[in-house]
Amino acid sequence: MPNNRSWPKDPDSRGLDAIFRPRSIAVVGASRDRTSIGREILHNLIEYEFNGTIFPVNPKATTVHSLKCYPDVGSIPDPVDLAVIVVPRDGVVDVADQCGRTGVKGIVVITAGFKEAGGEGARLEAALLEKVRGYRMRMVGPNCMGVVNTDPRVSMNAQFVGVTPRSGSIGFLSQSGALGIAIIAHANRLGLGMSSFVSVGNKADISGNDLIQYWEHDERTRVILLYLESFGNPRKFARITRRVARKKPIVAVKSGRSAAGFRATQSHTGALVSTSDVTVDTLFRQSGVIRVDTLGEMFDVAALLATQPVPGGDRVAVLTNGGGLGILAADACEGFGLRVPELSPQTQAALRDFLPPAAGARNPVDMMGSATPEDYGRAIEIVGHDPAVDAVIAAFVPPIAVRHEDVAAEIVRATRNLEGRVVVLSIFAGIHGDPAHLSDGDTRVPSYPFPEPAARALARAVQHGRWLATPEEPARPTPGTRCEEAVALVARALARGGGWLPPDETAALLDCHGIATVRTLRAESPEDAGRIAAEMGTKVVLKGIVPGLVHKSEAGAVRLNLVGARQVERVARDMRARLARAGVAVTGWVVQPMVPTGMEMLVGVTHDPIFGPVVACGAGGVLVELLRDVSIRLAPLTGRDVREMVRELKTFPVFTGYRGGARYDLAALEEIILRVGALAEEIPEILELDLNPVIVLPEGQGAAIVDARVRVGITPPPLPVGAKRRG
Amino acid sequence: MPNNRSWPKDPDSRGLDAIFRPRSIAVVGASRDRTSIGREILHNLIEYEFNGTIFPVNPKATTVHSLKCYPDVGSIPDPVDLAVIVVPRDGVVDVADQCGRTGVKGIVVITAGFKEAGGEGARLEAALLEKVRGYRMRMVGPNCMGVVNTDPRVSMNAQFVGVTPRSGSIGFLSQSGALGIAIIAHANRLGLGMSSFVSVGNKADISGNDLIQYWEHDERTRVILLYLESFGNPRKFARITRRVARKKPIVAVKSGRSAAGFRATQSHTGALVSTSDVTVDTLFRQSGVIRVDTLGEMFDVAALLATQPVPGGDRVAVLTNGGGLGILAADACEGFGLRVPELSPQTQAALRDFLPPAAGARNPVDMMGSATPEDYGRAIEIVGHDPAVDAVIAAFVPPIAVRHEDVAAEIVRATRNLEGRVVVLSIFAGIHGDPAHLSDGDTRVPSYPFPEPAARALARAVQHGRWLATPEEPARPTPGTRCEEAVALVARALARGGGWLPPDETAALLDCHGIATVRTLRAESPEDAGRIAAEMGTKVVLKGIVPGLVHKSEAGAVRLNLVGARQVERVARDMRARLARAGVAVTGWVVQPMVPTGMEMLVGVTHDPIFGPVVACGAGGVLVELLRDVSIRLAPLTGRDVREMVRELKTFPVFTGYRGGARYDLAALEEIILRVGALAEEIPEILELDLNPVIVLPEGQGAAIVDARVRVGITPPPLPVGAKRRG
Repeated sequence: MPNNRSWPKDPDSRGLDAIFRPRSIAVVGASRDRTSIGREILHNLIEYEFNGTIFPVNPKATTVHSLKCYPDVGSIPDPVDLAVIVVPRDGVVDVADQCGRTGVKGIVVITAGFKEAGGEGARLEAALLEKVRGYRMRMVGPNCMGVVNTDPRVSMNAQFVGVTPRSGSIGFLSQSGALGIAIIAHANRLGLGMSSFVSVGNKADISGNDLIQYWEHDERTRVILLYLESFGNPRKFARITRRVARKKPIVAVKSGRSAAGFRATQSHTGALVSTSDVTVDTLFRQSGVIRVDTLGEMFDVAALLATQPVPGGDRVAVLTNGGGLGILAADACEGFGLRVPELSPQTQAALRDFLPPAAGARNPVDMMGSATPEDYGRAIEIVGHDPAVDAVIAAFVPPIAVRHEDVAAEIVRATRNLEGRVVVLSIFAGIHGDPAHLSDGDTRVPSYPFPEPAARALARAVQHGRWLATPEEPARPTPGTRCEEAVALVARALARGGGWLPPDETAALLDCHGIATVRTLRAESPEDAGRIAAEMGTKVVLKGIVPGLVHKSEAGAVRLNLVGARQVERVARDMRARLARAGVAVTGWVVQPMVPTGMEMLVGVTHDPIFGPVVACGAGGVLVELLRDVSIRLAPLTGRDVREMVRELKTFPVFTGYRGGARYDLAALEEIILRVGALAEEIPEILELDLNPVIVLPEGQGAAIVDARVRVGITPPPLPVGAKRRG
Repeated sequence: MPNNRSWPKDPDSRGLDAIFRPRSIAVVGASRDRTSIGREILHNLIEYEFNGTIFPVNPKATTVHSLKCYPDVGSIPDPVDLAVIVVPRDGVVDVADQCGRTGVKGIVVITAGFKEAGGEGARLEAALLEKVRGYRMRMVGPNCMGVVNTDPRVSMNAQFVGVTPRSGSIGFLSQSGALGIAIIAHANRLGLGMSSFVSVGNKADISGNDLIQYWEHDERTRVILLYLESFGNPRKFARITRRVARKKPIVAVKSGRSAAGFRATQSHTGALVSTSDVTVDTLFRQSGVIRVDTLGEMFDVAALLATQPVPGGDRVAVLTNGGGLGILAADACEGFGLRVPELSPQTQAALRDFLPPAAGARNPVDMMGSATPEDYGRAIEIVGHDPAVDAVIAAFVPPIAVRHEDVAAEIVRATRNLEGRVVVLSIFAGIHGDPAHLSDGDTRVPSYPFPEPAARALARAVQHGRWLATPEEPARPTPGTRCEEAVALVARALARGGGWLPPDETAALLDCHGIATVRTLRAESPEDAGRIAAEMGTKVVLKGIVPGLVHKSEAGAVRLNLVGARQVERVARDMRARLARAGVAVTGWVVQPMVPTGMEMLVGVTHDPIFGPVVACGAGGVLVELLRDVSIRLAPLTGRDVREMVRELKTFPVFTGYRGGARYDLAALEEIILRVGALAEEIPEILELDLNPVIVLPEGQGAAIVDARVRVGITPPPLPVGAKRRG
């Protein structure tokens, strides 16, 4: 053993310790050229005082950076845990093979030109992965910037830029190497430290999902930050984050939202498929990931979560020494969905006890320009002990007589006395340097230069608190389901090539999952239609079957409110004749009983090639369609998902009796959404499903599915080797 | 004369030169106490080397800060242009009187405790204003931080904090003194300079409107920034900014948006009335003011507008040396409504000529980590000369081998060669110091630490460019209006106490302005109703008149589709009996012909106590109401206002034939909105007006106003003295 350090307590059995906690590192491609990446990595490892042995490898040198250099990995006399590989692309597979043969456990491949370059690069990446798998190694990259672990027991700075992250409690994953540098520099400037940093590059082996699971058990990591450009296995991501986010906050930026950004994403890390941004939003929300829009916001949120508890509610008290700043802070809070309620009479009285008469004590609390550091401390303790306050924002503008450092110290002192019951943030407007934290020992208070980022970060944390407060729910079972029958039905449809199912099969498929459609009988002739209508004995709807016709009503292929055999027969005949004149062939009819009036809704499914089934629910009708009142969730659905979906709709108040109107059967709608979700989850070959309209009847009367369409097909084959679907 | 400096060329005749360009300043209340405001102001004036004479005034001292001190303003032997007053509150009115008597032209009252403190303070402010008016002086404050003019011909730093603004091209107004300090500090940090800075305090005399007009003609001011907490005279503000914004961009933060913020606004500067945030948005948009949400954003926008032309369009080319940053920039651009189109084949070819093969040339342009400063310069010139590009964002992350200063220099050089045809912004991610500008002589390029603020600032500038590109339109005349008749009608209603007009007067009032309602005849008895229906000879609607009943349909007081005297008479009788049983008295009926089916809309007016008439147009019906599809404008309306109002609605596509449906009579709806706006503008006593529903019929068939309600009353009396309604 090159050193006597014992292997640290293993937090993870997936082999990631080889990456994060190696006892020895080979730098393959170490170089004496001061502008080369190999030299920079070696230099960074030495300068950061890696707590283990470093072995430069380079056939053309005997010494690099004062260290003995080896011609190849096999020549190193001691065991090597990790190899950082920076040789030219065409040599990487060979080096990996050598590593595997000599018992190296992990490799970090910095070299680029693999899948992201396409063609030969993609082929080489596949060969590289085969080596890694064959030798049961783990790999970061290729095409990455490196790995950092600030744990003093490891002290590894295995990346090639001149910026070293501070030590701290953030685990950071970046899918972009170049941006990773900017991220480290920015975090340093804010005084935010990292437990570890990984530039994942092409994610050929180690993915975000692996790292999240590693950080789950890493005691030094309190907050997980992700900069993502693509997903490997989002369903696995959802499963893992749902669990991990209950222990440690996960904050993510997912870029590539725009068409142009997507264009660049594809060529950038070679991610073959992106997906709609709305689906990403849904994925994050369902799995408790805090999504932020920008890197700046990610750090704002991280500064809060790394230092303060998750807030228990949304009631904010704002303290300030200058009215304008208090107004801006209150505006910002309410703008981001937080409340700034008037403080209780007791709290106001306690504040007035020591504040000047002209001060405002209602909230925002304006302590006036004369406020001393001690006033800040007292006020924080008073409002912080008010049970009706969940968070305190202490905002300060520099007056003449008070040193802001003294105010900062008092804010921290008072925060310590709150013992973590209430979240405290500070805003130091106009202070040079913008410290991200005020700190004294273990007590730290995040600090922001303006009210808006503070309020936004707090709002994200409050939202996360709400997610945490709602107990996890398993996917709700849907009793009475005849799964095998449904699978067999779809299998028969696939056997004849898939596509849209005919109406009777559609109804049968839905029926297998307990989803009743309005009784729909097929008629082959006008006479047939008349006979069926007579049997139904109620007012009926007659619809012409015209393969490929989407907007039936507009084409005149739907007639409502018909009564009796004679009328139906005549209308069917007329419809056929009229459409024939328009060049449209009616191949048959369906007859349904008329449905009473109700709320017109739609429930549907689309199959996302990466995310799987996405269930949608929305208000129906043309006008509402324009206003896009739709909510979506990824299958499988929990009862909570379904309840939230319906309640998110802007038109939701109509269900509960809007303006003295009727109340509608919400339970029936929820049951349909739940069962549709279960069906889509069960049978991934359902590529599209549309229940439109679903007429939700007055309370207690159920819901009627008037029209249903289902398209089945083989889901896209697994992506080519090298493209990522694993996590 | 105390100095031989000539009075600078007068840009303004409103007496504001006395404030901005005094040749001599008295500091009344100058003090030897180093913690006093009076001492600080004197110190700042001296240290900033005021280009004129300073006279300390203090009865208790003979020398202050090495200057001869005078016991009162009257004892100063030379003429005094400006007095800065920092004496205790109860002495301010006397000092102002002395100033007036000795020919002082302007005063800046720092002292607080006036209107913002209420009671005696408000009375004193009124007395102070009387002195100012009586002596024809101008006044900034009271309760303000002071005034700065960085013009080297004046060089006046008449404020009391230790932060001095840099010289530059921004005219800045702050309604909050404390925040003003933070603002100056932040601007300094960003390297943004100001032409002048005014803390307006209570705005008793000099208001935002005065300052905007001053800056309009001030050659050193290129951009006007406003931090506002309340409006004095928003209608005047709109008139002035509509004109000035065509010459110089005006960027404003209006705070007090939230309920809590409003609570604080009221107590803060004593502004008695705020108003709905939506109305403020509308005011700004109609008058060309660029509204930003935060102070941070204000400076982001100012950095762009102070250095670059207003963009001619929304097409952005993104250049980067790191894929991730390009994606983030593209995402941000599209997120803020900008386009990042694929570049033309010619431009792509020109880029590929010198970029490495793996580079992306489509847009975002990824020049790879190897990009040199010269590559940045070449790429900016190439895409900047593409006629399909309106703006270039050059984004940089630090790679190993390139110095960011060299890249910055090349960006500026290339920008100069574009000769202002295309707007250029830069993003230097991860660079310490975050310069707000790269500059070389006159060419300056704004710089941002992250893509999002850059894209947002650019988007605001693009929006402003669109506003500038649309020619100003006068309020559109509405021919055939019988104004006097309308005024007389309303006067009669006011004479009997105002309130809701009866249906016949409502119809008559609207008719005076050429707004035709559906023929509506009043019936006193069921027989009467039947007779009227028979005369109409068509299907009719019968509505019971029930004073105070708002939701008529839901109460059963409306019946549709009635035919003939007998049916109408019977229904009227039944309605009266049924409502009587519910305790509701029907006092009569109205009979209208049935209106054909169409788009159900509403057009209305509310009278804002500060902003005057606000005209609204929206989609009607319960569902759509929940979705809040409404647009508003302040009267008077231009033709452009009306066109935009309708086109802003999410349901607008229905008018132009959505999904093969009918096209509706847009012109008729626009004419109604225009005439309603004219009516509301003409008769401010109209406190509420509701045309609901307005049934817009298919194209060419007009629109039918089925129900109309108008409430008239005396508009609120002028606010008490001291409360601000003047501009």
